[in-house]
Formats: sequence, structure tokens, C-alpha cells
Amino acid sequence: MTDTLDASSVQPDVNLSVLAPVMPPAQSSHAASSVGVNRLSAALGEWVRVLGTEHVLSDAATLDRLGRSTLPTSTRPAAVLRPSCTDEVRQVAAIATTHGVPIYPISRGKNWGYGDACAVTDGQVILDLSRMNRIVEVNAELAYAVIEPGVTQGQLADYLRENKTGLWLDVTGAGPDASIVGNTLERGFGHTPYGDHLAHSCGMEVVLADGTVFSTGFGAFEGAKSARVFPWGIGPWLDGLFTQSNLGIVTQLGVWLMPEPETCQAFAFQVPRDDDLEYVVDAIRWLRLHDVVRGTVHVANDLRVISARRRYPWELTGGATPLPDNVRSELRREAGIGAWNVMGGLWGTRRSVAAARRAIDRRLDGLAHVHFVGRRTLRWGQSAARWLRRTGYGRRLGEMLESASSVYDLLVGSPSREHLKGVFWRSRVAPDAENPDPSQSGVIWLSPVLPMTAHACREVLGLVEPIFAAHRFEPLITMTAVTSRALVCVMSVCYDREAERETASALECYHELFGALMKQGYVPYRVATTNMTKLGPYARTYWDVASRLKSALDPAHVLSPGRYEPGSA
Amino acid sequence: MTDTLDASSVQPDVNLSVLAPVMPPAQSSHAASSVGVNRLSAALGEWVRVLGTEHVLSDAATLDRLGRSTLPTSTRPAAVLRPSCTDEVRQVAAIATTHGVPIYPISRGKNWGYGDACAVTDGQVILDLSRMNRIVEVNAELAYAVIEPGVTQGQLADYLRENKTGLWLDVTGAGPDASIVGNTLERGFGHTPYGDHLAHSCGMEVVLADGTVFSTGFGAFEGAKSARVFPWGIGPWLDGLFTQSNLGIVTQLGVWLMPEPETCQAFAFQVPRDDDLEYVVDAIRWLRLHDVVRGTVHVANDLRVISARRRYPWELTGGATPLPDNVRSELRREAGIGAWNVMGGLWGTRRSVAAARRAIDRRLDGLAHVHFVGRRTLRWGQSAARWLRRTGYGRRLGEMLESASSVYDLLVGSPSREHLKGVFWRSRVAPDAENPDPSQSGVIWLSPVLPMTAHACREVLGLVEPIFAAHRFEPLITMTAVTSRALVCVMSVCYDREAERETASALECYHELFGALMKQGYVPYRVATTNMTKLGPYARTYWDVASRLKSALDPAHVLSPGRYEPGSA
Repeated sequence: MTDTLDASSVQPDVNLSVLAPVMPPAQSSHAASSVGVNRLSAALGEWVRVLGTEHVLSDAATLDRLGRSTLPTSTRPAAVLRPSCTDEVRQVAAIATTHGVPIYPISRGKNWGYGDACAVTDGQVILDLSRMNRIVEVNAELAYAVIEPGVTQGQLADYLRENKTGLWLDVTGAGPDASIVGNTLERGFGHTPYGDHLAHSCGMEVVLADGTVFSTGFGAFEGAKSARVFPWGIGPWLDGLFTQSNLGIVTQLGVWLMPEPETCQAFAFQVPRDDDLEYVVDAIRWLRLHDVVRGTVHVANDLRVISARRRYPWELTGGATPLPDNVRSELRREAGIGAWNVMGGLWGTRRSVAAARRAIDRRLDGLAHVHFVGRRTLRWGQSAARWLRRTGYGRRLGEMLESASSVYDLLVGSPSREHLKGVFWRSRVAPDAENPDPSQSGVIWLSPVLPMTAHACREVLGLVEPIFAAHRFEPLITMTAVTSRALVCVMSVCYDREAERETASALECYHELFGALMKQGYVPYRVATTNMTKLGPYARTYWDVASRLKSALDPAHVLSPGRYEPGSA
Repeated sequence: MTDTLDASSVQPDVNLSVLAPVMPPAQSSHAASSVGVNRLSAALGEWVRVLGTEHVLSDAATLDRLGRSTLPTSTRPAAVLRPSCTDEVRQVAAIATTHGVPIYPISRGKNWGYGDACAVTDGQVILDLSRMNRIVEVNAELAYAVIEPGVTQGQLADYLRENKTGLWLDVTGAGPDASIVGNTLERGFGHTPYGDHLAHSCGMEVVLADGTVFSTGFGAFEGAKSARVFPWGIGPWLDGLFTQSNLGIVTQLGVWLMPEPETCQAFAFQVPRDDDLEYVVDAIRWLRLHDVVRGTVHVANDLRVISARRRYPWELTGGATPLPDNVRSELRREAGIGAWNVMGGLWGTRRSVAAARRAIDRRLDGLAHVHFVGRRTLRWGQSAARWLRRTGYGRRLGEMLESASSVYDLLVGSPSREHLKGVFWRSRVAPDAENPDPSQSGVIWLSPVLPMTAHACREVLGLVEPIFAAHRFEPLITMTAVTSRALVCVMSVCYDREAERETASALECYHELFGALMKQGYVPYRVATTNMTKLGPYARTYWDVASRLKSALDPAHVLSPGRYEPGSA
């Protein structure tokens, strides 16, 4: 899955860390940040009064846990605060501003592959919002929920099912424990027609650095009846400001939910040769632009699919890297997959889904054979596989159906742990099969956005494949149609974090990929916390405007400051 | 049509005018605005150097024309500037900031019913962007256009047709001469699945008050390949800031276009009795939430439909107002319409449209008889009407088909002047049949947003109907499903601007309606320039945050200042 792990739980993101170089002189004259011990202890004292000692943590075990990251580099916090409600967040923020101590809000801290729970610099105080996990409202008539940052995909999905609401949540591949708010603020995406999470949210409650609390959209108006059904409100639309930014702390979010359709079917097809990608991309663009396919469509290369089922075949390569072509094609053959593997979903009435199937078949006629899979087909196949489990065919069928059904789960709003496995590709030890913990793996995500054209795909692949090879990695790639016109190309640099040399190479590989892609105009849709400062040299005017907004809303620069962020006065 | 005239062409809007009461003391200490003559003449001198005398106008005729409004009150500008490109706008803005002279940008100035081209106060300098009417790019493969503020609906629609691009533009009922950028910045809406214009725009070029020029989204990155296909870019999303605001001047916009579908059909049905509205609203919500209907759906009351075909029947009432019930039902009978009249569109393959038709019939079975009309049916009916034109039936059929086909035009992206006629309802003189000019009419729009529930509709109607009656007006109302969960209830107070008493009553009626709706939590999605300050008392914290942003991006407060906006230093 392209978006395995893209459910960030850091919130808000800290792209504005790159602003410091363009901060106005007034601020730039401040001494570079490293928080004075006195200021920190003074702030900690006041935070204890607000939260109680049990929710102001600085023991080694806690700091170790939050200092861990899937990235080669990570940062260590100075302390961890665990507020239980918006009013506590308000007081915590005001205290941070008073003492000029940087706080770094996280929702669930599962921003795997993009920095996990780590701040951009050492010594920041993590504001852990996981205790704020209330499902504030679910409205079945108007199909929305209002949730706090600590609410996980699994929690809301269970609630919707157990209470027979008839509503589905759009989930990502990041598993049941990832935060919905965190992912939305990172502008993550899922699989259904509600896949663009920001575009399907409605109304935020925001706490500013000085403790100002306000709601966006119509929520700003007391007693407004349409706060969760019409996103724009009246006057300038501010919600976008608080995504991928360090301008405020989002403490509540309205989320639109999808009414269970009459039917849902997955469609899937393979393309044998690498070059076939060209016509596939053109076909998907046509199907999206003509509104035949309304969810995100995922185009995964062979290695992406294989890595979801098994780790790097160290035994077959005698420990050598990167993966030799002959081994790669053998694994591809074994897995019964193509060079590229396409998957998407259809939702609606039986007739409308049948009409969409017909249009897909017609558009791909002679190019690929499309399989359509509904829940019934899956159940049937699974029992067949159980009967044949002693045969090689039965085992492969079972494997295929297992990953097929975990994919199907995503289409019907039920989060699955299956998709977390892929990040252990280069690990030499197997992850916990039941509950894999990516923070023990080695992975860096890089996700440039490209126009949905064959030409752009070819250019990006031609750019990155040699770089992966030069650093002895193999590209695990998915192209996802997140709009009708754009693909997010999610590639992962998977490495064995136990191997020092390989870990170093992974970082070099990432930086080289990043540089080459930026040079060609392929900007990522999100970026790892440790690499945000890399955006600084680009788009200076834009960051300058953003920095004016930062100074207006957080003059002391205490919210998620960046590497070069000036400390507070 | 509910959104007749809702294509604003003011840009940017001036809701921040209400911020002054909450401006930080530093600014509030400024003297209240009324631009010094010296500052103005100094600025005019520099503007002439940049634009040439022919594009710096202050002759009475020009000021009269731009001082005209469909509203009972209007404001008179001090001068008009007509830049031809972004660089001229940059210089004009910088000069305004230097001299502290307020400038008020408009795109085409056709914000009918919401203030036309009028600034919030007298004596502002209108920045008329109508000369900036370049279609910068049309990309047929990726289905988007990049346009300047002066580009009209008619201009782009013609370009797309004449160049056989196979692309459709989502248009509003505001006619061919309205600006696309202006409407998008006002967050207007049309009729197709691309009806939410802001949600289908992608990337802005913005000029700030100090002359800073920058692009939003990926456009901020030089050579970015995805600036027009992926709206969010990286880092905080700023586009929303420049809608319904006075924070910057938008000089370029990316607009997504709809590929011509295999087929397009209009669907329409009537409900005889007023109370039938309840089940209709529930049915529309179901059809939108289940993705059967993807465009906006319009529910017009009898008077809205009648007013599109004829003016107030002064002759039948002996000049009395409001419209007596018996006359109203007679007109309704004559026109062959219901108490409420529903219209929407279906786009797609023949099969998918057939599937949608089936789902609509099934959902409304026993409630209403739904008519489906394609282009062929219309053509057939029109020739039939020509044959029967001497008979009463033929005339009525002709009339019905005329309005039906003008509605159909909107579904296929071709703007029509038909829908401008409704605003002349109370005029005693007939508008120019070929080219009605709303600025000679009397209309105030009020457009509260409500949750798409029968209860909310009933509550709003119960609130406003007595108020209309008390002021001797009759409610012309459309409820439009702009999201799957919300209705915008566009009601118009139409008055005869030649009648002084009636004009005064119209204003009183508007203010009473506004107050009653706000009290019940029904906030408008946009508001007339002359009434924005009414929003001040509500949502103070929100406006306070917005005012911080205003001070950060326009410290001299020269862009579209509001009534109580402090002047510049």
C-alpha cells in the first residue's frame, strides 16, 4: 500500500522550522535555541501545578521511548506533558510562551517513516495529546464525527461498528493505533472517495501559543448550526493554516463519514512489464477524470507487494545487496504478481458499480485483465485456500487472499496491521507477526507529487532507480492517484538499522533522492521532521510570508520550533 | 436558480472590515480613516507614472458607474486604477502602502446583490482588474486552466468550445460577464460536480499590500511540475486565507475543468404542497450522501421560478404588496409548477447515468414523479412548441422549455443571461430582454447555511416568512445542496428602487432577517459589503485572530479597509 505508515500522528507538523533563515531581523537577533535550564525548570514547576506530577514525565524510559525513530537520526525530548483536555492545553501553551520553552505537540506519535514522535531538535518538551481521545459527537443523520487528537483509527472504526451507525471511516494503512487528527493535519490520504482527509474534515478547535482558544469555520459563531456540514464558514478560511505547520495546536476536528453503500468491490490488475506503466497511468487518469473511479488508486511495484509478504531474501543473495535482478524476478514469479500492480475500489448501488466495472473493462480492453473482488468472493476463496492449504498452490492462494482481504478491509473502513510489515524489508529479525512495531524498523519515506502522466512517471523512475542502486538499495514504490490529476509517488528507503554502514547509506540515499527530485520540480507532499530544513533554500518568498504569519500567531516561537528557529526573548 | 447572481466579482472580499474593533491598540490608535487629500494626490501622481493617465480615472461618469449598486445603499470611489499585469499591481500596491491610501480590488465588479463593485466606505480607490483577462494556460491532458481575474465565464467557456478542448467549465447563473476568479474568491458555487469553486481551484498568484508577489501550493517552488494538479503543496496551506478576505490581491488562479462526459441529463420534479419540502430534503440528503447525485441540487420555491419568467403582477394586485395568496396560487397554476421545484444534473457514461436515474426513482418512489431531460428531449420539445405556439398550451410549453434549456445550459458549462432576470421582480419597468443589467434592479441577497435536514428547513422558513410579510415583501427562495450535508438558502429581498418607501423597507427587512437568522445560528456563507460590519459582534475571538493575520500581511491596512478600519500611519 502506498500509504502504509503515512498516517502521521505528529501534529502540528513543523515545516515552518525552515522559516528561521528568513525571519525578520528583530527575531533573528535572538540567540539560537537551546532552552535555558532555569526557564525549563520554572515552566516544569507550573506545568506540574496544572497537570499533576503523574502527567509531567522526564524519566529515562519515557524519554528513550519517545526519542526512538524509524529514521537513522532522532531527537531526545526534555520532558513529556500529557494534558487531558483543551483547557489544560491552553494553560500549558500559555506557560510555554511565558517562559519561552519550546513545546512539540503530538497526537499519537506514530508518524512512522517521517520522524515518529520526534521534535526537530533535542530538548523540546513533547506535548502528548493521546489522553485527549474523546469521540465528542457522532451524527448518523448528517454522517460526521467530532473527535480529539488522541482518537485512533481503530477506536473510531470500532465505535461506528459497535453502535451500528451504518457509517464508515476512511482509514490509511497505518494500522489501528494511528491518530486520525494527526494524519489529517499531515494531509495524509486513504482509499475511499473520502481519501483526501483534509478535504473531508469540517471545523477545527485550535489553541494558539498564547493560550487563545478558537474554532474555525462556522464553529467560530456561538450556536452555529452548520459548523460540521459546511467547511468554509464566512471570512478567510483558516483551517489550512494549521496543517503541516507549527502555527497552532488542533484540539478538536470534525470528520465526515461515509454511509455504508449497497455494495463495495475492489478492482485489481497486473501489468507484466515495467514499460506497461505508461498506458496504465493514462488509463487511470481517464477513469479518475471521468468520475468512473472515485477513490484513490494505488499502483505498486513488485517489491512493494513482495515486501508486504516477506523480508529481504538474505538467504538467497548470500547477504549481498542490492537485490539481484534474477532473484527479484524469481520472487515476482513466486508471488504471482506483475512489475506493477494496480488496486482500487468501487462503492455504490449494485447498478452503479456494475456500470463502473463496464467502463473500466472498456477502457482497459486489450491492455489488462481486471479482476473485481467483493466480500463474497473473498470468503469463498479463503475457504478454498483452507482446503488446499497443504498444496503449494493453496499456500500461495492463501497468502494472496490474506493480503487481498487486508486491502479490502481498507476499502470498507477497517484499519489493519498487515500493511505495517513492509517497513521491515531489510530487517534481519522478524517483526512480531501479531503486532509489528515499526519504530523497531528502518525506513525513510520520500513522497514526491507528480502530474498523472506517463511522461512524469517515467522521468521520476529514471531519476530515482540509479540512485537507489548506487547506494545498494532497491526501490519500493507505489504511485497513488490522490487527485484526478496527480500521483503521490511514495518510495521507501528500507534499511537494517543494526547495520551501521547500511544505516549511513540510507541517509545518503535519501538526501540524494531528495535533491535530484527537487531539482526536477518534484516536490514532496510531506517531509520527515529531520529533513524539513532542506526545504529552506527553496521557495524563499513563500516561507517569508509564512514566517510573518508565524510571528503573528506565535511571537515567542515556542510551538514546534525548527532547527534554526530563534529562541524566545 | 438559487445562485443567480451569486457569482461575485469583487475580489478580495472585505469581511475583515469588521476587525477594527478588535485590532491591537497599536493600530487602533491610528486616526479613523478618511484619506487625506494630499496623500491621495501624491499616490495618484505615482500611479499615473506606472499606469499612464488613460488608466487612472476619476471622471464623474466612471465614478458614477462604479458607485452604482443593486443594494439600497452604495459607496462612491475616489478614483479607479486599471492595471494590465501583475507587475503593475505590485507597484500600485506598494504605492498605496507608502502613502496609506486604501485600494479596493475588483475583478469584473459584478457582485450583484452583494454590493456590486462598491467598496465598504466612500473614497477608496477601486483597483479594477478587468484588463487582466488573459487565459494563461489550458491543459487538455490534465484538464485545468490558469486564468487572470478579468477572465469571464463567457470568455473561458467560448475558448474551451472554439478550441475543441473537450473540457467544460462549471458556471454560475451570473451570466457570461461575471469573473471566475471573483466568484471563486467569494466561495461561490455552480451546478456540476465541480460546483464548489474553491475546492476545484489549484494554486494562486498573490500580491500583498507591500508589493510582495508569491504563489501558493507547489507554485511557490520554481519549476514545480505539480502546481496545478495537487492543491495543498507543502507546509501550511495559504489559499484559504485569500478568500472572502482583504489580506492580498489574487492575480492568477488555477481552475480545474470537467472533461465532457458521454452523457448529461437534467432531473427535475415538483412537490405540490409546502409541507412536502420535508421529505424532499431527506431524499436529497440521501442521494447526495450515497453519491448518486454529485452536482449541486436546487430546490426553488414557486416565486423563485415565477420571478425568472415575469415581474411582480402589479396589474393583478392593483399595485398592492405583498403578493396575495390567491394571486400567488393562480400564478403557480398558470406556470404549471409546484410549491417547491427540484432540479439537478447527472453526468457520466450512459450506463452510470441510467443507474443513477434508477436510484433516484427508487428513492422518490411514491413521493414524486421525476422527469429526466437530455439535450435530445429539449430539442424535440422546442420544435413541438414552435408548432403549437399559437395555442395557450404551446406558449406555456415554449416558456417552460426556454427556462428548462437555460437551466440545462448551466449543467453543460455554458453561461446564460436568462437567470439575471429574476432580480427585476419588483421593478415597474421591464429590463432589457436581451441583456438585462442587474445594477438597474433592486435586490439584496441573504444566504444562510443550514444542515440538510427537514427540521432546519422548517425552522428557517418559519423564521423568515413572517418577516418578509411584515415588510410587505414575498420570499423568493432557493435551497441549494452545496455539500452532501448542507443547504445554502439563498433568499432575495427584491424591491422597486424607484419607490423610496419600498427601498427603505427592503433594507429594514434585510436587517431583521439577518438578525433573526444569526440569533438562531444560521450564518450566511457570504454577505453584502455594506453589511459585513454586522458580523463584528459575533465570533470576536475568530476576528481577533484574523486581525493578527491582517496586521502581519497588510500592516498599513490599505487593502479593502472596512468601515471602522484604522487608517494607515
